[in-house]
Amino acid sequence: MNSYRSLRIALLGAGSVGSQVARLLLEQHDELAARVGAPLELVGIGVRDVDAPRDVDLPRELLTTDLGTLVAGADIVVELLGGIEPARGLLLDAIAAGADVVTANKALVAAHGPELFQAAETVGAQVAYEAAVGGAIPIIRPLEQSLAGDRVTRVMGIVNGTTNFILDRMHTEGSSLEEALRIATELGYAEADPTADIEGFDAASKATILASLAFHTEVPASRVHREGITGVTDAMVQQAERNGRVLKLVAICERLPGEPGGDARDRVSARVHPVSLPATHPLAAVHEAMNAIFVTAESAGDLMFYGAGAGGPETASAVLGDLVSIARRHVAGGPGMPGSTHAKLGLAPFGDVVARHEVALTVSDRPGVLAAVAGLFSEQGVSVESVRQDPTDGSAALVLGTHAASEARIADVLEALEAHTDVERIDSVIRLID
Amino acid sequence: MNSYRSLRIALLGAGSVGSQVARLLLEQHDELAARVGAPLELVGIGVRDVDAPRDVDLPRELLTTDLGTLVAGADIVVELLGGIEPARGLLLDAIAAGADVVTANKALVAAHGPELFQAAETVGAQVAYEAAVGGAIPIIRPLEQSLAGDRVTRVMGIVNGTTNFILDRMHTEGSSLEEALRIATELGYAEADPTADIEGFDAASKATILASLAFHTEVPASRVHREGITGVTDAMVQQAERNGRVLKLVAICERLPGEPGGDARDRVSARVHPVSLPATHPLAAVHEAMNAIFVTAESAGDLMFYGAGAGGPETASAVLGDLVSIARRHVAGGPGMPGSTHAKLGLAPFGDVVARHEVALTVSDRPGVLAAVAGLFSEQGVSVESVRQDPTDGSAALVLGTHAASEARIADVLEALEAHTDVERIDSVIRLID
Repeated sequence: MNSYRSLRIALLGAGSVGSQVARLLLEQHDELAARVGAPLELVGIGVRDVDAPRDVDLPRELLTTDLGTLVAGADIVVELLGGIEPARGLLLDAIAAGADVVTANKALVAAHGPELFQAAETVGAQVAYEAAVGGAIPIIRPLEQSLAGDRVTRVMGIVNGTTNFILDRMHTEGSSLEEALRIATELGYAEADPTADIEGFDAASKATILASLAFHTEVPASRVHREGITGVTDAMVQQAERNGRVLKLVAICERLPGEPGGDARDRVSARVHPVSLPATHPLAAVHEAMNAIFVTAESAGDLMFYGAGAGGPETASAVLGDLVSIARRHVAGGPGMPGSTHAKLGLAPFGDVVARHEVALTVSDRPGVLAAVAGLFSEQGVSVESVRQDPTDGSAALVLGTHAASEARIADVLEALEAHTDVERIDSVIRLID
Repeated sequence: MNSYRSLRIALLGAGSVGSQVARLLLEQHDELAARVGAPLELVGIGVRDVDAPRDVDLPRELLTTDLGTLVAGADIVVELLGGIEPARGLLLDAIAAGADVVTANKALVAAHGPELFQAAETVGAQVAYEAAVGGAIPIIRPLEQSLAGDRVTRVMGIVNGTTNFILDRMHTEGSSLEEALRIATELGYAEADPTADIEGFDAASKATILASLAFHTEVPASRVHREGITGVTDAMVQQAERNGRVLKLVAICERLPGEPGGDARDRVSARVHPVSLPATHPLAAVHEAMNAIFVTAESAGDLMFYGAGAGGPETASAVLGDLVSIARRHVAGGPGMPGSTHAKLGLAPFGDVVARHEVALTVSDRPGVLAAVAGLFSEQGVSVESVRQDPTDGSAALVLGTHAASEARIADVLEALEAHTDVERIDSVIRLID
């Protein structure tokens, strides 16, 4: 080992991830020093309450509630507070003071990533956030570096473990969404208030980050179309299974063609919604609360990255990986690499996204209804690929599969269906991935 | 874009990968310049024969047979020649002259990686070799950087597409090994001389590289235990399927406990051989010529990286990713990161590796043979977990599954079985992965 001075590490947050990071920094001190070429000295752990119970016994003298002072004296700040403030302000202060930063804070990176990256670029500081998407799964670095010479066309990820657990239970155990959510809560996969997960907000933050990286374009969270899983019913799950398919909540970041008649450059779409995948698709085999990100690039073809998307030790692994990489660069010298948002592609509205859809309806069981319904699709230029009709009590269940059609056209079809006297209700609409 | 001067790129080799790299450098010139912050100027392509036919039409004026002169004028040298010399000498010359290097040459990195890394560290040059293992799959950077703060316990990879294609065909189509190899050759997956693939030499080179990275320890190719797939029979495939299992050729790099009674530090094992995996294992779903690397680390848990392990454009994607990353660092300033081999763990002999085994025998069909055979296992301290006996014509087919036992013990058992008068032959031995 060389004789580089210690690097002063300030840790912000001692929750399930932070306490594991602290434990590993202390327990693996010598091994980490050998890897970095300099000791990583944990100089303090910033917390809200020094006396709060923690997963790991941490040395009392390291805990402090004075986060500002802690940050001011650090070479590298590791931010695991979550939320926007005070995390944002503390990291901007740290960067301004010349420190490098590691964060696992997806909400912060999604909302203020460009501000942090810009601040870091100005002073040559490093910013790393591998743990912000996909927990332990290396996905940020592969997108940023390994695929840096390729043209990514689509990123499709199961990036929320809670919703994957729930949908997986509905498929494998036949649970209802409510039952599956209850079990997820009992097992600690879901928060007491599960809104951020089941309504897709968490996945949307990650979509923002993935799309920005994949397409070298800033994609604000406000431009991510978002639908959660609360509309997924037992009937939809059963219907998918009958067709050899599986329902998953995915974040999709996609390169779309330029606007017809307008700017010829590609546009970017980022969205979160349930999809129906063939059971043979690699993402269909992602069970329980696991995560996976399926990336398609022009030269590389299809790639998949699979692993634990959450959990204290798992996420701590990604944080420490960032920390060691940053510390090695700190020792070797040279600035951090700036973010890459040069492409500045336009953002496509959700209505321009194209997909095959499966629409399930309950309609009056009388002659001519099928023709009338099919007419509503063709009036909007949506071509129907398959139809299945099953009689029910006095009504008929109709399932229509469309050829690829834009979301805008499908929305018009759904509006027309809603208004049609023979359509009793629209039972479900699901997008199909091939 | 800033006004950094052009970076002079010398490309060595214009085969299936090199010609794609050249094409992309020329076609995507502006996009790559924007990503790097400086134009990447392809100053020449070193080839053996300027007139040889190529996959891609390349500008004649870029082709040269004078590789030494080409290298001498480059900022970054991209080596896609394959083989040891002249690749090794040219890269050492390039590094000595201050150039950074990218290589996809697994044989070279496996045999002379430490020499290249040392030379680069001396002058602060960068060396990147993402394409040397797993083609388009990002695996080098995840191991080197993303898992830099974790303790990897095992890397298990399907890293040879040809053998995976052959075994997959045997499973899915019921082909014989010979038929499957013929098809692999027709489809261009196998070379005219398939020895390097089917005897496991290619996978062993990759095991060397993966083990060195995962365990921060130099692992010479000569210390990788290697068995190919030529011993895999139809009967073994069928037997695996009956048990809900799949046969795969894998490279396994594993952290083993220290020597009993000796050095307490962990030891490293690297080996290539067929294994029997449960059909539910993520690696079992890797079909055709695809590759995947399954990594287990103490904190991160299980991770998997999946994608195309070969192919011109696919491998070119990894090469360009390295090139862009290196070029960005070149522009930003700061030295390359040294390799990490500080751990200097011992290498465990293959005999110390522990696994469950399944041994298929043909034995005399007479009373007492089962007891005698079972006795040979217990004499070596190998505990038998399961037995299946099927009568055949005048003989009996016995399949014994063992509890975990060391390879040394199993070797002793096999020797005793060979020598036993009632054992007509040992039909197969396969290692089981849980």
